[in-house]
Amino acid sequence: MGSDEFVRERLRAFLAEDIGSGDLTTAGLPQLACATARARLTAREPGVLAGLEFALEVFRLLDPGVQVLPPRLEDGQPMEQGTVLAVLAGNTAALLQGERTALNLLQRLSGIATTTRAFVDALRGSETVLLDTRKTTPGFRFFEKYAVRIGGGRNHRMGLYDGVMLKDNHLAAAGDIGTAVRRVRERAPVTVRVEVEAETLDQVREALQAGADIIMLDNMGVESMRQAVALIGGKARVEASGRIRQEDLPALAGLGLDYISASAMMTRSRWLDIGLDFIA
Amino acid sequence: MGSDEFVRERLRAFLAEDIGSGDLTTAGLPQLACATARARLTAREPGVLAGLEFALEVFRLLDPGVQVLPPRLEDGQPMEQGTVLAVLAGNTAALLQGERTALNLLQRLSGIATTTRAFVDALRGSETVLLDTRKTTPGFRFFEKYAVRIGGGRNHRMGLYDGVMLKDNHLAAAGDIGTAVRRVRERAPVTVRVEVEAETLDQVREALQAGADIIMLDNMGVESMRQAVALIGGKARVEASGRIRQEDLPALAGLGLDYISASAMMTRSRWLDIGLDFIA
Amino acid sequence: MGSDEFVRERLRAFLAEDIGSGDLTTAGLPQLACATARARLTAREPGVLAGLEFALEVFRLLDPGVQVLPPRLEDGQPMEQGTVLAVLAGNTAALLQGERTALNLLQRLSGIATTTRAFVDALRGSETVLLDTRKTTPGFRFFEKYAVRIGGGRNHRMGLYDGVMLKDNHLAAAGDIGTAVRRVRERAPVTVRVEVEAETLDQVREALQAGADIIMLDNMGVESMRQAVALIGGKARVEASGRIRQEDLPALAGLGLDYISASAMMTRSRWLDIGLDFIA
Amino acid sequence: MGSDEFVRERLRAFLAEDIGSGDLTTAGLPQLACATARARLTAREPGVLAGLEFALEVFRLLDPGVQVLPPRLEDGQPMEQGTVLAVLAGNTAALLQGERTALNLLQRLSGIATTTRAFVDALRGSETVLLDTRKTTPGFRFFEKYAVRIGGGRNHRMGLYDGVMLKDNHLAAAGDIGTAVRRVRERAPVTVRVEVEAETLDQVREALQAGADIIMLDNMGVESMRQAVALIGGKARVEASGRIRQEDLPALAGLGLDYISASAMMTRSRWLDIGLDFIA
Amino acid sequence: MGSDEFVRERLRAFLAEDIGSGDLTTAGLPQLACATARARLTAREPGVLAGLEFALEVFRLLDPGVQVLPPRLEDGQPMEQGTVLAVLAGNTAALLQGERTALNLLQRLSGIATTTRAFVDALRGSETVLLDTRKTTPGFRFFEKYAVRIGGGRNHRMGLYDGVMLKDNHLAAAGDIGTAVRRVRERAPVTVRVEVEAETLDQVREALQAGADIIMLDNMGVESMRQAVALIGGKARVEASGRIRQEDLPALAGLGLDYISASAMMTRSRWLDIGLDFIA
Amino acid sequence: MGSDEFVRERLRAFLAEDIGSGDLTTAGLPQLACATARARLTAREPGVLAGLEFALEVFRLLDPGVQVLPPRLEDGQPMEQGTVLAVLAGNTAALLQGERTALNLLQRLSGIATTTRAFVDALRGSETVLLDTRKTTPGFRFFEKYAVRIGGGRNHRMGLYDGVMLKDNHLAAAGDIGTAVRRVRERAPVTVRVEVEAETLDQVREALQAGADIIMLDNMGVESMRQAVALIGGKARVEASGRIRQEDLPALAGLGLDYISASAMMTRSRWLDIGLDFIA
Repeated sequence: MGSDEFVRERLRAFLAEDIGSGDLTTAGLPQLACATARARLTAREPGVLAGLEFALEVFRLLDPGVQVLPPRLEDGQPMEQGTVLAVLAGNTAALLQGERTALNLLQRLSGIATTTRAFVDALRGSETVLLDTRKTTPGFRFFEKYAVRIGGGRNHRMGLYDGVMLKDNHLAAAGDIGTAVRRVRERAPVTVRVEVEAETLDQVREALQAGADIIMLDNMGVESMRQAVALIGGKARVEASGRIRQEDLPALAGLGLDYISASAMMTRSRWLDIGLDFIA
Repeated sequence: MGSDEFVRERLRAFLAEDIGSGDLTTAGLPQLACATARARLTAREPGVLAGLEFALEVFRLLDPGVQVLPPRLEDGQPMEQGTVLAVLAGNTAALLQGERTALNLLQRLSGIATTTRAFVDALRGSETVLLDTRKTTPGFRFFEKYAVRIGGGRNHRMGLYDGVMLKDNHLAAAGDIGTAVRRVRERAPVTVRVEVEAETLDQVREALQAGADIIMLDNMGVESMRQAVALIGGKARVEASGRIRQEDLPALAGLGLDYISASAMMTRSRWLDIGLDFIA
Repeated sequence: MGSDEFVRERLRAFLAEDIGSGDLTTAGLPQLACATARARLTAREPGVLAGLEFALEVFRLLDPGVQVLPPRLEDGQPMEQGTVLAVLAGNTAALLQGERTALNLLQRLSGIATTTRAFVDALRGSETVLLDTRKTTPGFRFFEKYAVRIGGGRNHRMGLYDGVMLKDNHLAAAGDIGTAVRRVRERAPVTVRVEVEAETLDQVREALQAGADIIMLDNMGVESMRQAVALIGGKARVEASGRIRQEDLPALAGLGLDYISASAMMTRSRWLDIGLDFIA
Repeated sequence: MGSDEFVRERLRAFLAEDIGSGDLTTAGLPQLACATARARLTAREPGVLAGLEFALEVFRLLDPGVQVLPPRLEDGQPMEQGTVLAVLAGNTAALLQGERTALNLLQRLSGIATTTRAFVDALRGSETVLLDTRKTTPGFRFFEKYAVRIGGGRNHRMGLYDGVMLKDNHLAAAGDIGTAVRRVRERAPVTVRVEVEAETLDQVREALQAGADIIMLDNMGVESMRQAVALIGGKARVEASGRIRQEDLPALAGLGLDYISASAMMTRSRWLDIGLDFIA
Repeated sequence: MGSDEFVRERLRAFLAEDIGSGDLTTAGLPQLACATARARLTAREPGVLAGLEFALEVFRLLDPGVQVLPPRLEDGQPMEQGTVLAVLAGNTAALLQGERTALNLLQRLSGIATTTRAFVDALRGSETVLLDTRKTTPGFRFFEKYAVRIGGGRNHRMGLYDGVMLKDNHLAAAGDIGTAVRRVRERAPVTVRVEVEAETLDQVREALQAGADIIMLDNMGVESMRQAVALIGGKARVEASGRIRQEDLPALAGLGLDYISASAMMTRSRWLDIGLDFIA
Repeated sequence: MGSDEFVRERLRAFLAEDIGSGDLTTAGLPQLACATARARLTAREPGVLAGLEFALEVFRLLDPGVQVLPPRLEDGQPMEQGTVLAVLAGNTAALLQGERTALNLLQRLSGIATTTRAFVDALRGSETVLLDTRKTTPGFRFFEKYAVRIGGGRNHRMGLYDGVMLKDNHLAAAGDIGTAVRRVRERAPVTVRVEVEAETLDQVREALQAGADIIMLDNMGVESMRQAVALIGGKARVEASGRIRQEDLPALAGLGLDYISASAMMTRSRWLDIGLDFIA
């Protein structure tokens, strides 16, 4: 899950956003703080589960003694309508306070994982890897990119700090691609790749000569992409990008691309319907 | 915009998520920090604008001297494909660093405002007000609820701290609705309303007797809702809730409900396509 | 106690204010960190207890293994001089480090609860509820408002975020009360009441027509208040406000007011004398 | 004012406590954000002014362009009923939002300064200096201790980090006073004094031999204190402590004490009545 | 400088560490807050300058109006004893308060840059690049790695988040190098390289087959390194590591290594003597 | 260790600096999170141990169940090459993630303690105490000053908040030393000493008359220092300061100085080589 403490700090902030200066309803019924209850997380439509561990941690933050009873799914597993993800037993006030935050996590992340799985399936049979982008909900990227991995995709850079991406406007400033790549390499950590965006085959050639590690074909037609892949000939990784939807994938699957990056998993996926039901 | 400093702090956190220990690309090309550029925010599809002031503030945080040139839209205005939202003139590195965060804000919030507007239009002619819920992306609620207001909806409570909502599980703990309402009123600020969830007409009656300020009809059929409205007779506000989609609204518009709360503006709306183009 | 994690974070900040870069005295005597001791929290004058759970949490933050032994009072209980509130057994350094912060909490909060109880007693027999205001020590409001509840009062809004209050200067900006109330309702969460301040009976009438949920009679004379209550006739809640002291309450108790708000519990109450004594 | 940035950070936290997720009233009347107004800070009873610079900074944080017009008092100056402290001209929403926080600062701090001045006056003619203690409102100590200085008192240590104070329970742990003083000196910064609490003349003697920098006479009678001062003979500073009220001071003024420490300025002083009036 | 706001936040924390609850000396002499002064930053021994912009920002945080007068050096320039780095004109209290923090930055960073420059000079003529490691002072890494770049070195990964490094203990867990590399690639961002540590030529071979991007030769002898470079034949980048000191570099310069990583710039460099002198 | 919570918060920040948005290597090999391992902290060169408790706490933060097995050294004990400091048994991922941060703490702090011990040994036989200064790595002062204490030195003030130090530029502002000392005493806590810097015997005389608690002889020659000590005659503490190295100490040991302050323990000490080895 990456760094647990990092995750917990974020989850605490999510709870603070909801609880603020106090949950008036449970504070108004003090007996809830002394009672225990059981509740069941259940899928209300089919999809791919993501975020369960985060959701459980939300409840643990509110009640360290909360118990997670079987059945217990793992992130990445398929769900049908009615599938039980986990059963919780713990403090009633804690279950009530954490419910909304936990479900918001589960619903959004499972929605992304479900869409990602469909995208990945559309590429099945090819070697091309589906990537995400930096188009994510502000403040929630770590979690959304996690959901992409759960759905079978891989992550493009997490932010501006773990990858170099030279676009038009960067290149214009440096004069030419070769100079830009050389300069940026001097200052960036050696563990990080340099990617160059290209819109034409000429730019692909230049990027290749400049020693780019990854060349991004930006909004190119299928035929140009085929030629670009041939031109690059394995000397750099090739990424296709630009408003790519699920229906575009079959046509791209056979081009020999290393990566296809898409943001639709974040920007066009619905939240999955998942509920928490108290049981007697 | 609420509290400006609160907003700025959140925007700083969003930038920190993206920039982390440093933007390797602009840091690698130091001439970008000394150059200036112009860029245009443009809608790439029709919709309702939301979040422009936040997006501009993102750039101001990176370059306090950034200028916003006309044309300049305001949140809530309609956009066509190609509509220019604003033109920015400022430090090149700042424009490049802020681009993604600013667009993520604009695209998500305009997407919500656009969907909200459609929902509100579907209720036009009735007195019923569209509300949102607490089903929001963790850490981003303030912004998403702002977009609902821009789209013409109103907000249900912001969190657990500014409204009381008694559900099944709360009521079970207190024995009966009357006792629960009375107890919670003693502890909650007097400026805050008490809402009670009801699934049957009997529960509606009980909630009314208990003095609930708002009665929420949870997943009731149209006919039951009509009877509930009649039964309540203006002595409490009435809210309909439960997986309500745009297509359900016309049937609900004539029931005399005070509020319809829906989460689809958050959970089922696409991000609107908006871009930033550097201009010569 | 509201949100436990919120409380713990505040208590940690209070300890940090006192301990800063280190408690020089206990750090200079390392044997204290290995020793255990018992200490007794004792009232040194009569009053109403408030803040005991917070005080105990202070010690738990410094020594998670600290034990609380009987006798053990609860917040809201009366104390005489010499009443033992609780006995603590734990790490000596932790008891010494937490002493001042714990006592500052207990003394200030019990002082407020004691004054509040006296105010509430002065209203006994009437239906009028005593409220606090936003006149609280900066940074300490959550705790001071808690003490008011313990003393038997109720809370007015916690801050600017959970209640609307339209005063002169707000109303001047909007032109008239009706417009102001309507506008502010469109933007505020529907779970929150709108209160309007009135200084004359004409303003009371206007506020009533504008649909105010609460009408605050600001510094009105007893006779005017009586007329205002009659005029409002239960169609809005009525609050009296304005430098109200304990001696003013009997005259106000029979007016049929819903609320009397006072700040004297915060601004004119002494701290109660409570001590921590180490025992052999 | 100490460190300005430290102060600003605290003031921001005080505003955040009040504003939370947004000031619903001014947000509901957007025209307030575009209007300007003038307002006058006025004393409504006599006393010593403290906290004006903090109060003005509160408004500056909300409106960096706010102007402070004459007349303009300085902290420490006497006020009569009706004295104008300062006139503010700035954004209307900012003035309304900052009002309560600014007044809470001014009223509490001026109350402390006023009481402190009375205590200091009661010692006039003697060399004895009035000190405060660590009995302060949690989270607000920096400001309350500032008010004591404004009133003419001086500060005892700010916290556990800038002074050593050996009490009974510390001494018991180390065996004897000499050992305790020696050990703690090895670990504490050399810029910090070591104070020892004494309840009897024998303990005074021991503390003196141990090389204490300050000897605190804890709850001693007047005659014992006189003997203690003689015994110490200038070889250590002498402090009297223990529930000291204003009426006790004349009897203590002639004893030759270096310091009298009292907490009544914090625990028994009323807030001073100061208001903010909008002017045409 | 990477992200300016990130830097400012760190510098604020450094000032807070020093100033704490207030600078007692300047607070005790309020006239300092009203006076202005000039001061000169001067090298007191030869070396390479690093950190000047950070040092100036420290003063700007304390006095936004501080002026920097010529002469003005840039980071990376050589200094002799007596070289003036910059002249400051500003508020006297601000200059006094910022002095120590600014000098601590300048002295530590210039010390690192000076040592790095010597290391880089010892490699002059070869293509081998000097890298740093994660052996840095806790909390100060961003600045120390910046100084390495100023000295002419390049950075290895900034932390565990922007590079993959598989060591013995990681590999043992996965069974074999091939499996480990494949698994970690599925989860790491594609913009980040995978490095494998090898102690023997066999391990080098395995790492090569596994498709490592960088192979680190850990504590190998010169002859083995020569063979490893030949074996790898440009199919991966090669890094030599392991307690490398300046005197070891000439022997390594001719081996055809891509990188030599060393921590001695952090762990064995002295701080450079730089002073701040007030001038009339 | 001072305040444990303060320490833990700093250690968490150190881990966050290294782990950032996630440890890619251990996250890529999820089996590490389920495995356990043993590892040994071993000295690789002789010296004085410092920071072990901090290092162990780093691992505890990552794995609360980590066990520390014997042999177990204490801070301040001497180490030879090969001395085992402690053996850890815990979660494999936690041991790998914490390794670098824990070693950076141990190596830097043991380096400082080792140098300090040598300085203190050079003063053995005299009453003069070795002090540190505020010349410390920004953000890491608490730990570095701790290491000085472990090495046998004592701390000068921790920051600007727990000691007054009047230098040239402060004194110039106040006119004369007497006035400056008097003014600053009025505002500083009485628990804190006032130190005055003197460069000549005349200044020493003035400082003495002004009632300075400590007089710092700044860069004086040995003969002048001897005269200064005689002149002061025990009426104030005397501190020698100014670029003092280990070889200068014997000449200073016999002068009767109370304190010698030196920064070379921070600015000229190497990190000690300490390693973590996984064991079968």
